Amino acid sequence: MFGWRGKILRVDLEAGKIASEDLDQKVASAFVGGRGFGIKVLLDELDAQCDPLSSDNIMVMAAGPLTGTSAPTGARYMVITKSPLTGAVTCSNSGGFFPAELKKAGFDMIVFTGRSPEPVYLLIDGDSIGLQPAAGLWGKTAHETDQILKKDYPKCRVACIGPAGERLVLFASIMNDRDRTAGRSGVGAVMGSKNLKAVAVRGNNPVPLYDPDEFKMIVKKYNRKFKEALEGKPFGLNLYGTAQTIAGTQMAGVLPTRNFQQSTFENWEAISGQRLTEKYLVKPKACFSCPIGCGRVTKVNESGFEGQGEGPEYETIYAMGSNCGIGNLAAITKANYICNEQGMDTITMGATIACAMELAEKGIISEKETGLGRPLRFGDSNALVELTLKTAEREGFGDLLAKGSMRLARHFGRPEAAIVVKGQEFAGYEPRGEQGMGLAYATSPIGASHMRGDPAYIEILGVPTLIDPLTWKDKPRLVKEWQDVFCIIDSAGLCVFFSVRNLCAPTKEILPEGIAELLSAATGVSYTGKELARAGERIFNAERIFLVRAGFSARDDRLPLRIVKEPLPGGPGRGMVCHLEEMLEAYYPERGWSPEGIPTVDKLKELGLPIK
Amino acid sequence: MFGWRGKILRVDLEAGKIASEDLDQKVASAFVGGRGFGIKVLLDELDAQCDPLSSDNIMVMAAGPLTGTSAPTGARYMVITKSPLTGAVTCSNSGGFFPAELKKAGFDMIVFTGRSPEPVYLLIDGDSIGLQPAAGLWGKTAHETDQILKKDYPKCRVACIGPAGERLVLFASIMNDRDRTAGRSGVGAVMGSKNLKAVAVRGNNPVPLYDPDEFKMIVKKYNRKFKEALEGKPFGLNLYGTAQTIAGTQMAGVLPTRNFQQSTFENWEAISGQRLTEKYLVKPKACFSCPIGCGRVTKVNESGFEGQGEGPEYETIYAMGSNCGIGNLAAITKANYICNEQGMDTITMGATIACAMELAEKGIISEKETGLGRPLRFGDSNALVELTLKTAEREGFGDLLAKGSMRLARHFGRPEAAIVVKGQEFAGYEPRGEQGMGLAYATSPIGASHMRGDPAYIEILGVPTLIDPLTWKDKPRLVKEWQDVFCIIDSAGLCVFFSVRNLCAPTKEILPEGIAELLSAATGVSYTGKELARAGERIFNAERIFLVRAGFSARDDRLPLRIVKEPLPGGPGRGMVCHLEEMLEAYYPERGWSPEGIPTVDKLKELGLPIK
Repeated sequence: MFGWRGKILRVDLEAGKIASEDLDQKVASAFVGGRGFGIKVLLDELDAQCDPLSSDNIMVMAAGPLTGTSAPTGARYMVITKSPLTGAVTCSNSGGFFPAELKKAGFDMIVFTGRSPEPVYLLIDGDSIGLQPAAGLWGKTAHETDQILKKDYPKCRVACIGPAGERLVLFASIMNDRDRTAGRSGVGAVMGSKNLKAVAVRGNNPVPLYDPDEFKMIVKKYNRKFKEALEGKPFGLNLYGTAQTIAGTQMAGVLPTRNFQQSTFENWEAISGQRLTEKYLVKPKACFSCPIGCGRVTKVNESGFEGQGEGPEYETIYAMGSNCGIGNLAAITKANYICNEQGMDTITMGATIACAMELAEKGIISEKETGLGRPLRFGDSNALVELTLKTAEREGFGDLLAKGSMRLARHFGRPEAAIVVKGQEFAGYEPRGEQGMGLAYATSPIGASHMRGDPAYIEILGVPTLIDPLTWKDKPRLVKEWQDVFCIIDSAGLCVFFSVRNLCAPTKEILPEGIAELLSAATGVSYTGKELARAGERIFNAERIFLVRAGFSARDDRLPLRIVKEPLPGGPGRGMVCHLEEMLEAYYPERGWSPEGIPTVDKLKELGLPIK
Repeated sequence: MFGWRGKILRVDLEAGKIASEDLDQKVASAFVGGRGFGIKVLLDELDAQCDPLSSDNIMVMAAGPLTGTSAPTGARYMVITKSPLTGAVTCSNSGGFFPAELKKAGFDMIVFTGRSPEPVYLLIDGDSIGLQPAAGLWGKTAHETDQILKKDYPKCRVACIGPAGERLVLFASIMNDRDRTAGRSGVGAVMGSKNLKAVAVRGNNPVPLYDPDEFKMIVKKYNRKFKEALEGKPFGLNLYGTAQTIAGTQMAGVLPTRNFQQSTFENWEAISGQRLTEKYLVKPKACFSCPIGCGRVTKVNESGFEGQGEGPEYETIYAMGSNCGIGNLAAITKANYICNEQGMDTITMGATIACAMELAEKGIISEKETGLGRPLRFGDSNALVELTLKTAEREGFGDLLAKGSMRLARHFGRPEAAIVVKGQEFAGYEPRGEQGMGLAYATSPIGASHMRGDPAYIEILGVPTLIDPLTWKDKPRLVKEWQDVFCIIDSAGLCVFFSVRNLCAPTKEILPEGIAELLSAATGVSYTGKELARAGERIFNAERIFLVRAGFSARDDRLPLRIVKEPLPGGPGRGMVCHLEEMLEAYYPERGWSPEGIPTVDKLKELGLPIK
């Protein structure tokens, strides 16, 4: 095989047994890789109704055929499992260098089953593969774990959980290469429940390509395009990182503020990408084979918030900043460092604290319950940092926060205060001011996410063409298309910023044609753009089958009351609610799903998916 | 205290410790007893988000102040816990003699916490109370368990689980006095998860009454009314048992047939109360202090279906009969015996098999999957009996059936084939032909049930006045009232057939006034009908708080697509769907709940319930 390594590593943690298995060519062509491979394994092997934190759950780490190649942004892998936060499938995505190393070691994916009786880590050192006792690593932060393993195996790349994953925080993440994160939906808690502390991998063989010359030529073309697109642009991702987005969402009036009670933040400049760059940036940092380099190495010296590491990203700044009414970028950065060290999702962490802040301001959560020694209020930077640490430790009020905002709000009998879909917190885009985003949140298989078909491209950034963010017409078709395209990106092993070349310089060579070109040269399977779009649709529907089996249907494709009933108080979308019902009515037929949100037998047959 | 015994028995199964605790008078007055006491304990002590089958769950067995008195039908107790079938609260109800014995032993309720390391049973023998090893009882049927315990303690009354409860069948029941059943929502699985096989109780002290002479006079009056109401009536519960209802629901076109695809059954006479009486009745049987005696001691000699025991009841005959397209009453009775011996809910068992039959007829479930050696089809009496036993044993296809129809249908990607609310199967009334029943199913705290405010009284039986079953006007108010009245009946320790005097001879002295009269004389707390109605509302709202904490809201108050979208194919309601949306729109304001189905702070304050 080319592009793909043709090998699946199976790790039975229960029995401590490891085996290698061949990848089926037909499956590879149809499901592409990464996210597609993961859902294929879950559909075939996992009881969708299992307890996500029991030994029954399966965790897949999967790279794509372009991961580890010179394809621009070919750095990604995905962690696919049943989420303890949502009860649905999740497919959490990360870059860095670990994924490429996995490919170099000869594997497209690792399938973890069962639960190890004792803490272990998986070591892949060239051809030598085995489970090692991890008693000495248990309790260590992600940074410490990375450091210790690197000392023993200097050239290895590490993915691991921090203490939050060990303690089953429901939104614990899996960190790799220190500060890269498969952040969402609690994949780290699943890893923790399996007593698996880390995966350390070192590979020796580059990914073989079907037509290396052709591939090289295409890559060269794209790299030139990236260069053109980024050079001299004042708001480029390379200059200010993802934090640049703050200015854009503030302007568009979709910057979630104070638990989505507002959509513009008076203090936005204090938390902007420009400010981050001026005050805390040490240097930018790029993932494997990435021409952009949106990563930020940062350092904070301000009293009470000292630290160094990477980030924060845009989503972190929204969740811990404007959404908590906090304009103190040092505090946000510090809380972000804690999340990276302890291994937690910054979005859910920030949004859960924001939810608690609203409930406290409304008199539902008392000072006694938070244990803060003062009333919890929006804007309290110290509370942000303190509660983030308490959450990782599951200490006092932190034990409640560790379950995310849905369970927190339910606990206090105020479910409407949780701004979630399917139990997962919104990303930093207000759907009342960006109608398509509302539909994308509602129908995303993993719960609210900006990474499952991000309409911000069309509604805010104008890629490929700007479409009025306040209209809900046409959005069902566009959201469906982008959801399928994201399936392809995630499965190929690319980063969504592969489309950044369009972001900064819209071209006609839009996805999925560009990826088809790269994939064909890499794998020898001659994908057309249309076939690839079909593969994306197949993967999205495969995920929906899992959701149906797990008990989800149209009634779960819902936004919180606030978003569909309360008019937006300011910004360009002032007075708007999100017109989800109207969009869903067109979306289901567009998808070939029944009004209950179930894929029809005809659609499943068309895509070659199991009809039950 | 009078009426109440004033004592709560606390059994910590984890530590093997037992303690007695005083009942608070204020709590007793406000929550009445039984169902009210149970939800009070859960609200105060249980994390509503816990795993129902973990040691965190709490199981309460609670009698009412009239249980064990001479009040007509004063025979009931309730089992209150978090249900593994629905994830909501449940309060499953049973009569017989065990509940009165618990009161005679001096307790209003038993609160079980934790999980015993080894199988045990609780023995209450007068003043001697302790946990005993139950290794010798584990694996025994409910009948065997009752017999063995009675041999050692001849005068005791027994509540126990059968093998289905030990194996955590999600709709396992708790049997008492051999054939009485706290049947619904899997209370038997919770008991099994706690390693608690049985409770054997013997008491020596009659329940003390506040004004024995007054109480005696009231009882005499009611017993005379019951006699008048029942004498000479051709379709009385005393003559034909609950099975008499088959004729009524067939006539009204609300007898669920073939998994709710039809609402009349061509073979209804073969499964009617008259047929049961002619062919299999040995003798009627009454619970403690009951002037009706609707219980049926039966015996079947027909080849392949031999057996003896009690039942079947109406609900069993609908679920295993018309709903499975089965007109063979011997087979239904046999399957009913198996459920009683193994300890399973006959409604969910029958409805789950009906769901499997529909999926098999539609080509979704194959012969190979059922392991029957022939295609599964509606009307297959042998399959009914065989699959019922396989379910109790969790063998092959039975392991899937053991999870109920919601999980079965999801497993096969066809959630719409499960006729459930909140994961619990419908009782034997078709909501398209009886609109109010649809609203009652949708808003019942325990999922679909005919025992949480049964509108069949007003829609089919004309008690107190017949209201057109096909109209949805006025139903929200009536359903709300009946739901609250049922809370009172269930909390007082009475049977819903306390209202049978109205059933057969409608009078003005309608509930809750009649119960207030009895309660006041028994307890010395002078309840008015209005105060008691308020207590009912308090209990219903307390259950709703638990649901909100557990994650339920308006979106869970939903009926299956079939019921709200597909017109009824026959009977008086031909062409109708259930107008749930219209009813809910009026029901929530009637309840003082938000449009999301959350009790408002004003309503909670009014009822003296916690606002969080």
